[in-house]
Amino acid sequence: MKKFQVITLFPDMFTGVFGSSMMWKAQKESKVELSTIDLREFGLGPRRTVDDTPYGGGDGMLLMIEPLWKAVQQAKANDPTAKVLLMTPRGQRWKQVIAKEYADTAHGYIFICGRYEGYDERILKQVDQEISVGDYVLTGGELPAMTIIDSIVRLMPGVLGGEASAEIESFSDGVTLEFPQYTRPVEFKGMRVPDILLSGNHGEIEKWRTEQSQKTTD
Amino acid sequence: MKKFQVITLFPDMFTGVFGSSMMWKAQKESKVELSTIDLREFGLGPRRTVDDTPYGGGDGMLLMIEPLWKAVQQAKANDPTAKVLLMTPRGQRWKQVIAKEYADTAHGYIFICGRYEGYDERILKQVDQEISVGDYVLTGGELPAMTIIDSIVRLMPGVLGGEASAEIESFSDGVTLEFPQYTRPVEFKGMRVPDILLSGNHGEIEKWRTEQSQKTTD
Repeated sequence: MKKFQVITLFPDMFTGVFGSSMMWKAQKESKVELSTIDLREFGLGPRRTVDDTPYGGGDGMLLMIEPLWKAVQQAKANDPTAKVLLMTPRGQRWKQVIAKEYADTAHGYIFICGRYEGYDERILKQVDQEISVGDYVLTGGELPAMTIIDSIVRLMPGVLGGEASAEIESFSDGVTLEFPQYTRPVEFKGMRVPDILLSGNHGEIEKWRTEQSQKTTD
Repeated sequence: MKKFQVITLFPDMFTGVFGSSMMWKAQKESKVELSTIDLREFGLGPRRTVDDTPYGGGDGMLLMIEPLWKAVQQAKANDPTAKVLLMTPRGQRWKQVIAKEYADTAHGYIFICGRYEGYDERILKQVDQEISVGDYVLTGGELPAMTIIDSIVRLMPGVLGGEASAEIESFSDGVTLEFPQYTRPVEFKGMRVPDILLSGNHGEIEKWRTEQSQKTTD
């Protein structure tokens, strides 16, 4: 079973997300195993310290190399062929085509979530891929890790009910295919469903949907 | 106090994220109010139905207009000047400069999280801005809503300890300014902190950091 292990100082952030909806179902049906590793457990000394000030000066604190290293070692012991992903704004931009690729691999993934002002650069020696989810700064790597896991797991064989769904929609092949959609009632507060969609003429409906699609090539 | 209200079928997904770290602290210090509105409460009939099949045919289910509309009305009753944001891959791409802009507004925000194959298009009449967090597909709008909230709240005055921190780092002004950082110990598994960072020569350190920065202009 494909494992997704997340190294984080905030394992509680994952409880609701891993325990709801598609991710919950994928675990229940033994398609994936989602777990967290609490970085604090690898902290140093009686206070289990995980951070320290940067050499050369600067604001804030960095995650120290030793606790991070040990946490990755434990994750690798759990899943020796897993690839290690570091969540960082400097990383490769996450895209649908990469999610598809990762969904098809036989091995699992280990996520390192940065915190504070960053991490000791030497952890890169343990990292297979640095990943960014977008051009914005977040408080930590936790939300990016959840985002990446969601985007991969839903593409895994047998996870979504309608296999077609995951394939048809936006961003497969780098092109969005979404069009305006409507359901009951036909009229709501003076707004009507376009007549074409009620016509039963599948050829015309297809044509209209293509015209209405906002296509964006990557 | 600035309100962030999220309309979702999965309010439990937010408990851990809203209850941890920076977002928890910002609420405790009365900088923000984070809450969810359960779309299910506005469902129709005894089963509180929120979805139905699309007119014109197609896979999957859509969120119906009536429950969504009523949920937005309730959110607006709670916070009449709030702007309504719809999480959708078709939306404007989220960026750090927009996060900064949103952090500085006097009004709050209402997030609509799509689910299933989408939503009845007529909800757009209630929406001020459609937003996408990146070129990838997720199971719902919940993780994008959390991501956007995190990126905004951390930029709000008084939320992060070191005011400087939020300003200096990546993507302010569309340019990344991150450089490799190191903390104790000086040597770890044969890997040493670069000598320059131990030199105490602040001019040289500054120069080295600039050289090492991976600059990417938007």
